[in-house]
Amino acid sequence: MTDSLNSFLFTTPAMAHAFSPEAQLRAMARFEWALTCALEKAGLAETGSSSILESLLDIEFVNFESLQREARDVGNIAIPFVRQLTSAVKQRDEAASRAIHLGATSQDLLDTALMLQIRVAGSLLNSSLDRLEIALTKQIRDHAHTILTGRTWLQPGPPTTLGLKLAGTLTALRRSCERLHAALHQATVLQLGGAVGTLSVLREAGQEVSAELARILNLREPELPWHTQRDRIVEIVQVLALLTGSLAKFARDIALLMQSEVGEAGEATGSGLGGSSTMPHKHNPVACAAVLAAHARMPALVSTMLYVMPQEHERGVGLWQAEWDTVPEAFRLTAAALEYSVQIAETMQVNTARMQANFDDLLGITMSEAVSAALAPKIGRSAAHALLRRAADRALREKRHLGDILKETPDLLHHLSPEDIDRLLDPRAYLGSAQRFIDNVSGDPDARS
Amino acid sequence: MTDSLNSFLFTTPAMAHAFSPEAQLRAMARFEWALTCALEKAGLAETGSSSILESLLDIEFVNFESLQREARDVGNIAIPFVRQLTSAVKQRDEAASRAIHLGATSQDLLDTALMLQIRVAGSLLNSSLDRLEIALTKQIRDHAHTILTGRTWLQPGPPTTLGLKLAGTLTALRRSCERLHAALHQATVLQLGGAVGTLSVLREAGQEVSAELARILNLREPELPWHTQRDRIVEIVQVLALLTGSLAKFARDIALLMQSEVGEAGEATGSGLGGSSTMPHKHNPVACAAVLAAHARMPALVSTMLYVMPQEHERGVGLWQAEWDTVPEAFRLTAAALEYSVQIAETMQVNTARMQANFDDLLGITMSEAVSAALAPKIGRSAAHALLRRAADRALREKRHLGDILKETPDLLHHLSPEDIDRLLDPRAYLGSAQRFIDNVSGDPDARS
Amino acid sequence: MTDSLNSFLFTTPAMAHAFSPEAQLRAMARFEWALTCALEKAGLAETGSSSILESLLDIEFVNFESLQREARDVGNIAIPFVRQLTSAVKQRDEAASRAIHLGATSQDLLDTALMLQIRVAGSLLNSSLDRLEIALTKQIRDHAHTILTGRTWLQPGPPTTLGLKLAGTLTALRRSCERLHAALHQATVLQLGGAVGTLSVLREAGQEVSAELARILNLREPELPWHTQRDRIVEIVQVLALLTGSLAKFARDIALLMQSEVGEAGEATGSGLGGSSTMPHKHNPVACAAVLAAHARMPALVSTMLYVMPQEHERGVGLWQAEWDTVPEAFRLTAAALEYSVQIAETMQVNTARMQANFDDLLGITMSEAVSAALAPKIGRSAAHALLRRAADRALREKRHLGDILKETPDLLHHLSPEDIDRLLDPRAYLGSAQRFIDNVSGDPDARS
Amino acid sequence: MTDSLNSFLFTTPAMAHAFSPEAQLRAMARFEWALTCALEKAGLAETGSSSILESLLDIEFVNFESLQREARDVGNIAIPFVRQLTSAVKQRDEAASRAIHLGATSQDLLDTALMLQIRVAGSLLNSSLDRLEIALTKQIRDHAHTILTGRTWLQPGPPTTLGLKLAGTLTALRRSCERLHAALHQATVLQLGGAVGTLSVLREAGQEVSAELARILNLREPELPWHTQRDRIVEIVQVLALLTGSLAKFARDIALLMQSEVGEAGEATGSGLGGSSTMPHKHNPVACAAVLAAHARMPALVSTMLYVMPQEHERGVGLWQAEWDTVPEAFRLTAAALEYSVQIAETMQVNTARMQANFDDLLGITMSEAVSAALAPKIGRSAAHALLRRAADRALREKRHLGDILKETPDLLHHLSPEDIDRLLDPRAYLGSAQRFIDNVSGDPDARS
Repeated sequence: MTDSLNSFLFTTPAMAHAFSPEAQLRAMARFEWALTCALEKAGLAETGSSSILESLLDIEFVNFESLQREARDVGNIAIPFVRQLTSAVKQRDEAASRAIHLGATSQDLLDTALMLQIRVAGSLLNSSLDRLEIALTKQIRDHAHTILTGRTWLQPGPPTTLGLKLAGTLTALRRSCERLHAALHQATVLQLGGAVGTLSVLREAGQEVSAELARILNLREPELPWHTQRDRIVEIVQVLALLTGSLAKFARDIALLMQSEVGEAGEATGSGLGGSSTMPHKHNPVACAAVLAAHARMPALVSTMLYVMPQEHERGVGLWQAEWDTVPEAFRLTAAALEYSVQIAETMQVNTARMQANFDDLLGITMSEAVSAALAPKIGRSAAHALLRRAADRALREKRHLGDILKETPDLLHHLSPEDIDRLLDPRAYLGSAQRFIDNVSGDPDARS
Repeated sequence: MTDSLNSFLFTTPAMAHAFSPEAQLRAMARFEWALTCALEKAGLAETGSSSILESLLDIEFVNFESLQREARDVGNIAIPFVRQLTSAVKQRDEAASRAIHLGATSQDLLDTALMLQIRVAGSLLNSSLDRLEIALTKQIRDHAHTILTGRTWLQPGPPTTLGLKLAGTLTALRRSCERLHAALHQATVLQLGGAVGTLSVLREAGQEVSAELARILNLREPELPWHTQRDRIVEIVQVLALLTGSLAKFARDIALLMQSEVGEAGEATGSGLGGSSTMPHKHNPVACAAVLAAHARMPALVSTMLYVMPQEHERGVGLWQAEWDTVPEAFRLTAAALEYSVQIAETMQVNTARMQANFDDLLGITMSEAVSAALAPKIGRSAAHALLRRAADRALREKRHLGDILKETPDLLHHLSPEDIDRLLDPRAYLGSAQRFIDNVSGDPDARS
Repeated sequence: MTDSLNSFLFTTPAMAHAFSPEAQLRAMARFEWALTCALEKAGLAETGSSSILESLLDIEFVNFESLQREARDVGNIAIPFVRQLTSAVKQRDEAASRAIHLGATSQDLLDTALMLQIRVAGSLLNSSLDRLEIALTKQIRDHAHTILTGRTWLQPGPPTTLGLKLAGTLTALRRSCERLHAALHQATVLQLGGAVGTLSVLREAGQEVSAELARILNLREPELPWHTQRDRIVEIVQVLALLTGSLAKFARDIALLMQSEVGEAGEATGSGLGGSSTMPHKHNPVACAAVLAAHARMPALVSTMLYVMPQEHERGVGLWQAEWDTVPEAFRLTAAALEYSVQIAETMQVNTARMQANFDDLLGITMSEAVSAALAPKIGRSAAHALLRRAADRALREKRHLGDILKETPDLLHHLSPEDIDRLLDPRAYLGSAQRFIDNVSGDPDARS
Repeated sequence: MTDSLNSFLFTTPAMAHAFSPEAQLRAMARFEWALTCALEKAGLAETGSSSILESLLDIEFVNFESLQREARDVGNIAIPFVRQLTSAVKQRDEAASRAIHLGATSQDLLDTALMLQIRVAGSLLNSSLDRLEIALTKQIRDHAHTILTGRTWLQPGPPTTLGLKLAGTLTALRRSCERLHAALHQATVLQLGGAVGTLSVLREAGQEVSAELARILNLREPELPWHTQRDRIVEIVQVLALLTGSLAKFARDIALLMQSEVGEAGEATGSGLGGSSTMPHKHNPVACAAVLAAHARMPALVSTMLYVMPQEHERGVGLWQAEWDTVPEAFRLTAAALEYSVQIAETMQVNTARMQANFDDLLGITMSEAVSAALAPKIGRSAAHALLRRAADRALREKRHLGDILKETPDLLHHLSPEDIDRLLDPRAYLGSAQRFIDNVSGDPDARS
């Protein structure tokens, strides 16, 4: 079992695996193996050492209990890991064990292993992002002409389209997708500096070993070791939080549209989905809730990462350690938020009749802006605004359509005919640039069909 | 194995257990059992039902895999848990299964189970706090007269005592100890409200069942269900963060005092403690680092808890879920910070010779305030301050003792004799109220011996 | 003009004043005056000194430009303030100037001044809290029997009452009110420790001066100076954030109820209130938005306060300074959130007809739990739950009332008569303990009338 | 006077101005003027309207008191601003007033004005960054060969150079500089969407007006309005926090090096710089403290920005408002941190003698790694490590140089000659790749001179 009974709800199995103890130990073993390869090539390790380490990449030599016990005394798992690895190699070939970890420090091992894990984690996110983009693009095209009430301050406004609403989310996700690519490229660099970042143990061979190690692990070489320059890894977490923030905006809108009193769109509700332990009739927006929960925890992770940036001197005391569980948690939450979002986007229920009905229930008052704008050039902006506000209030009070009220308003009829009024109150004629904006994002669906 | 390879460094085994899946499931089983007892007493469950549930408190009936699978669809583990429990009871006695969970909602189950876990967790912290108080009190008494350089802005100032320094930490911990007691008392209340907090399913029996359930679980009854009034549980996390903040202040000071250039106090360094993977000579402040790391993550947890307070209507969508892993993490980090602090406090190394030497190295300039204060009534505050600043700068520049410089300063000798100067520069005579402050906190050790 | 064009929206005039530059300077002058009084009494200042300082309490002597200039060089405003004060006193009486600030350090002055400001700020909050409690209590009593749909996960559930909904907020506010009293009592203590917290400059007179200073300023004396033990001041900010969190829950519910599609309750909308720059018909929940905005910024302030707790040694480097603008901001945001909440609570619009209509629109399905609970003892919990889920889905699909569906369900009619069904579907008979919970909070309004 | 007595310490005058009420009002006036220009060109505003608005760009027409009063009722300053502007235009030319704000909503006005302010603010930061890069590059070159003790966990390690230490900061700053350029480019886009983001009021002219407005204001046009897609503006704040985090790492190191017990480098201390109100001898790291204080507040601002991303539907309720004071504060704190950092970098005091002395005080033990690494291939890594650990502990205990101890160690002398030992203990020969890393960052100073 895991540390927490609930944590599986806030990750995906694949992402959980990417940051599992096994995956971390494998990445650590891989670092030490690759380092030995590089040392061997530079003549600093016995020929054949690396093949011994290669045979240990399955990490079966690790004794987790003693790893924990020793790690408590020295403050990290790298030291006992290297000790266990050395001992395992020694049992096979004493000479091969002599150069293990040569030139490296614990943080080199832990940071580089993290980079290897992050690369895997990043590609998991990318594939979810691809699926989300496809699902959203389809919904945008399908609903480019699906009119619903626009809402500001949680109050009804002029109409918009569901396509445009979702297009906003798509643009934000695309930006975060680019950010993720860029940040992963920036961040996944080798860490190899030795005790204080000078690579002094390797003396003249530093450059050669470092380059070869980077080549083997397929990581970029940084200008210099970055033990206490953490900006790149912080940036990764920031990008994940930005992405999750955009997903939460999407999920919040869906959860609001799914309210029974709105009922315009929502999560699919099937047999067991969204049920309640006590209320038989319930269909809860379970996926939206999970996205919102994931989002609610991301700012804190970013905040921790930023707070611990001023790590002292060549390697700090305590602040680096605070990153260890923070970075994986950011990936796990983001992965979960993405998967739940894919589920929402792929199976979203849209109720166009309800959209129309809700719009109609407002008796045309959300179109008051259209009339006001038409009237402004004639009687001035403020006067037009005031006239329409009175008419809209009256429409609501008398439960009559705004059009009827307006047609009884002499001040207005001097400037607009009843036909003008009807035309101005038509939502289909009041979508402005909505289609153009959608085309900017996803191309014109009509043109493509 | 656990979710993360490093998380054991930031918890204690006992606290990890208190929030383990097993402990949560047991607490959940305990809630359902106690509810059935209460229902049985009220005539709402078949006689004997509760004894069936009692036999299932070992939670062996739980199938974790199907729990996870179903939980993903419904958004929490309570619903599949109740289903599995019901099925297990049914296998033993169909009639006993009918009233399971009657009147309750998922959140009643999860929140009350959390309260039971928090009570255990709180008592773990209390016992660590007791040990820390004892260890600190001993150090305060032992070092009531141990003089060291006071430091402000990381620059040397007049002398203080190690006892006073630690007494500050002790007062803060005592306040947090009281806060913890009060917050635990406030927070550990029953949650029982049913679907929307009205206890409607229980109709007239609501009061009786609720009171009996609270009695059995030894929890206080709240004025009303608190599904979306989370202030008490947020407060708990705030108190933990405050406590950890005070521990971090303690740890930071020790880590600073342990710098080789200061060397006045530090963590015990034994055989394996604080070693490095590459530097044989290293003795790292491992426990201090762990406390600082724990602290660095607490503000974020508080921030999450506060952010998710505006949970919608009777039960919210997404924000509550963000609490689930946040509350346990706060307890785990605090428990770790406390245990590491106990270790530091109990085994702290104090180097009084180094304290004296560091003080002496400053050539008396940190005593300049004493002379300045004595001179102020005679020549005015500003003039005295300026005179001493010049003298102190000169002492450092010429590497001569401030006393020697002052005794060559005619302006000063009009007002103070060489004997006055020597007396003023004596650190033992310049501890002001230090002893009194210590006595306020820990009693006069001399008087008690 | 102020620093920001928008900040007035997130404070009240009175709270803005309590933390204005003028108020801070006055509090600082008051500290120095009171210290001189205490020194005078102890024979450490010339008789009559304090009366000179008393004449300067209007802070007209302060030159703000040079204060700023010097403060940049020394890192705080206390040092140039004392210099300007000393110079102003000197102009009136040289002897009176000699003992100014004697025994104190900059942080003594700034921290104690803050305590004086916090006391004022706290009483402003208390009086808002009193008004909010009165307004809420009235609404609770008025709406103890106002039935509306309970909502969980933003989906409809069984009925509750508006009174109970608001009673939850009232209990949370009362708890925060108590927390505020306790935290203010805890926190408003004197700060007087001198350079390193030993009060060494005052030598034997430390106790006397400290006690007298506390007496004059009506602050409690702490056990010892708390320059780097910041838990009490952090706690204040935490309490403010808790309080604002509860207000945000209230505001979010009102904003949701005010959605045009729900329309059950909302902010008063008058002439200019809640208008839009472009949409004539708009009535926005302006006060709710402001409360939510204030809340959204509070977790960050708490987080900052917690982060900066590990202040080094006797007085730290940088972390204390981060508190300076953080504490006042927390008070300003809380004051604004409270005032907007008072406005909402006092003028809240309630639409009981809409509550009834929304309930009816759901065709009885939100009552399915009541029928399910009645059926469970007869056919078992799961079977009852499944039967009602099918019936509720059918009711929605066919747009018929659940009662009608149920009365056509033979499996059900074996156990419940049509009269039973009608009775079970009556929301007024399904409020459980709602009234009792309200009485726990506000007393029975009927009994009192 | 300003809102807070201390806030000037955490901004620069230029940045304070960039976000002053005046600057915001001017930017708002500029938006409305440019919109009128665009409308005029499109035939939607009377010819000549824009010249009237141009004459009002000095914002003298604004009545701040009534702006505040009305803003409280409607929730933002845009609405009363437009009203006052309209009225001012009307007084000059009624016809010119009719199209003011046509097509726009309050948020269009406020967001675009913010973009204009951010562009100014960004260029202020860029010029500080340039100065910092120059100052750091000079120090790096000057101190490429300045050896000092490397420090990890606040404990001494092998030597490094001051040049390398600073080079790490320089690389991080360069990355943040690039991030800032990219994020400013991304973020400074026009906001123009009208009420719900469809530009419906402008009907067919939307594209033309939008393009012209963007051209006049020299902002990029986004794919679609971004009222509730806030990722770009959040990203800006994240970049500022990253940058400030790197500055704080720099400042923390300098403050630590400036401790009197270390004394290797520090801020310049001049006449009034870093003085104390009570301790004449004090030279405090005032600029470092300010950088650390600024940093301590940045994570919270990022956290707020991320929290408020899920803004509802077309324009949200409350969350957007939380950005208003958050974004400017992030710029102010960053500007201050940068300026203080420039001051530190330009005037940094370096004490090479003290660096040498501190290194020597450690009796060669920090070189133990060098010997251990040389010995490992011969006796194995663990044995070498253990041997050196014993020798280093003995050196400290007996206060003798590690070299002398080693030369008395027979196990060692089998493998290393006394000359080998001396060579291995030479710090100048143990800098590994330090120079190469510096060259990667700043070019080889020798090659260039």
